[in-house]
Amino acid sequence: MAAGTSIGTTPGGSTSPETPPEHGLTGTVISVDAMGGDTGPAAVVGGLAIAAEKNPDIAFLLHGDATELTALVAKRRALDGRVAIRGTSDVVTMHDKPSQVMRGGKDTSMWSAIDAVRNGEATVCVSCGNTGALMALSMVRLRKVPGINRPAIACLWPSRAKSGFNVMLDVGADIKADAQDLLQYALMGASYARNGLGNPTPRIGLLNVGTEEHKGRAELKAAHDLIAQAAPDNDFEFVGFVEGGDIPSDKVDVIVTDGFTGNVALKTAEGTAALIRDFLTQAFEKTPWSKIAAMLAYTSLRRLSKRIDPRRVNGGVFLGLNGTVVKSHGSADATGVAAAIKLAFILAQSGFTERLAARVASAGRARESGAATPEEEAVSGSANG
Amino acid sequence: MAAGTSIGTTPGGSTSPETPPEHGLTGTVISVDAMGGDTGPAAVVGGLAIAAEKNPDIAFLLHGDATELTALVAKRRALDGRVAIRGTSDVVTMHDKPSQVMRGGKDTSMWSAIDAVRNGEATVCVSCGNTGALMALSMVRLRKVPGINRPAIACLWPSRAKSGFNVMLDVGADIKADAQDLLQYALMGASYARNGLGNPTPRIGLLNVGTEEHKGRAELKAAHDLIAQAAPDNDFEFVGFVEGGDIPSDKVDVIVTDGFTGNVALKTAEGTAALIRDFLTQAFEKTPWSKIAAMLAYTSLRRLSKRIDPRRVNGGVFLGLNGTVVKSHGSADATGVAAAIKLAFILAQSGFTERLAARVASAGRARESGAATPEEEAVSGSANG
Repeated sequence: MAAGTSIGTTPGGSTSPETPPEHGLTGTVISVDAMGGDTGPAAVVGGLAIAAEKNPDIAFLLHGDATELTALVAKRRALDGRVAIRGTSDVVTMHDKPSQVMRGGKDTSMWSAIDAVRNGEATVCVSCGNTGALMALSMVRLRKVPGINRPAIACLWPSRAKSGFNVMLDVGADIKADAQDLLQYALMGASYARNGLGNPTPRIGLLNVGTEEHKGRAELKAAHDLIAQAAPDNDFEFVGFVEGGDIPSDKVDVIVTDGFTGNVALKTAEGTAALIRDFLTQAFEKTPWSKIAAMLAYTSLRRLSKRIDPRRVNGGVFLGLNGTVVKSHGSADATGVAAAIKLAFILAQSGFTERLAARVASAGRARESGAATPEEEAVSGSANG
Repeated sequence: MAAGTSIGTTPGGSTSPETPPEHGLTGTVISVDAMGGDTGPAAVVGGLAIAAEKNPDIAFLLHGDATELTALVAKRRALDGRVAIRGTSDVVTMHDKPSQVMRGGKDTSMWSAIDAVRNGEATVCVSCGNTGALMALSMVRLRKVPGINRPAIACLWPSRAKSGFNVMLDVGADIKADAQDLLQYALMGASYARNGLGNPTPRIGLLNVGTEEHKGRAELKAAHDLIAQAAPDNDFEFVGFVEGGDIPSDKVDVIVTDGFTGNVALKTAEGTAALIRDFLTQAFEKTPWSKIAAMLAYTSLRRLSKRIDPRRVNGGVFLGLNGTVVKSHGSADATGVAAAIKLAFILAQSGFTERLAARVASAGRARESGAATPEEEAVSGSANG
């Protein structure tokens, strides 16, 4: 954390998070950490303004440097009467280790933003800050949904689907996942696709190096069987193993994998898209003819650019916690922040957190009534706790 | 394997692989499995013709159905006097399990093509067939280079590098790799970059979910230290951890990872490129203006298409065996096969196999002379065997 400059006693400072003042906002309130992104609070406030203009039912509880935020918000007419500011004196930087933030981060905007969800003032929190710290703080302050062993980060992946997106998880909450974790990811991913994307019966695939059932690591074969068994009672279809090339396909809606593989795949796809974008730009700058072509194709190329723009799908969602946290890219600009806010709004309106918790508890009970292994007992036991 | 139709006694049939007849070819001989790809032997022979036209120093030892191949080769003037055919009666299909092929595959074109390298008639073998079977047969017939625990498949990855490519390994020979295996991949990848791409001091990166040294799985932290230690004596630079987004970057030349992660990353990148290509085509078909633009930009778009065309970089290379095997895509057309042949030729000319074996043996001795762990002893011991 940076050596924060104290900003005086602003209403609702982080001193008494258990009894927050009334924020006086109406509509669906999103809790937003305004600090800690690479682009600074101006980009965040810019994003809120875009979202507020498009959506009259949204309001924001904004956490960060009160003086700076008050000035930024005052400049945006769209935010008139739709923002309450919670002044905080400290910021989580990209270099802070999660353990440091968990010990000494009480005065940070990130902590305050998460605690607004914990306190019930908002159901969804959005932050552009340090992913590791955000995950660690979210785990500690919101706690895992009973029955969930490892929370996961789900992302939206540009695809050939009608909606334009598939869901993939875990893309980096944890570097490992056993068969039970992968089953829980399948349940969480299905719930996200239902509530976040309006897909009543999502098709789930398990990422592997081949689609044959004998291929891959032992935990994947075990997870294959567990997920197949869970499908009929949990309103999803299991399409079995899928490969890297299937992630953007229209034969699957939700791709389940461990956080190491998912993170590498996500960054590889982003890197590939960026490479092709650069090559395309170079191709159009090559000759006078191609420059004219680029002008003629301007709108078509903009449409393409929008379709593969990572800012449009900005927002990894932390699943498996008592409350939803949307992680926006650290380098997100106003457009990117607005995309994350839109996603947060949809999830807040759907009552996603409660539905997911109910689903996991029910899956836990179903397992318990069958011939449960000791591992399954432990999971379903806590699901009923 | 398909129930092969016997094709009579053609010269050099697979009955006596230890005493092959003189093939009478001059130049650098590449051993080619003509069967087993998805596109059939016509595409393979077409690829040989393209390669032969461009390169007067190349000749082919071609394995497969003698009647069919003789007819196909006769149609190509470029192949006049530059092909010797080894008739075989059986084919490895894409559905055959590696274990089946190892037991009963003696009469297949794949076995015969690999054995030509084993017998010293060629130094490099090319096949479009079943990857698992090709790897298994290559392991059994060519055997591992002394000192290598797990062979790896390396691929060329389109990148921002001046050469246009980075190297990545393992992309699927084995689903796991421990720290010692990852060190060997680094040595093999460096050797490949030197001999296959003419890069005297390649920069090696280890794929992880973050670039900080404390991140990632335990075996990655151990591999990080082993590779860093090996760099000064082995003519490569170690740039430390890299992320998925760095794979096509110009900050690294060779990316080292386990075969599970590498395979997912490779297929994810291919899927992403295919998705963008389709979106681009759709964008240009949208309006009359954009159709005119597409015509004007035709050459520029073709240039782009060529830069990201997977056929141009066709050819995974099996590293760590006594002989080099180039795996071409199963669906490769003539252009793709020609690309794989070109790569095979460069590697054959460089004396790559011998250089790699010498390098691994030398690294083994270097470890032995230091304070070796028991594991290292075992590896370096066999390196001197």
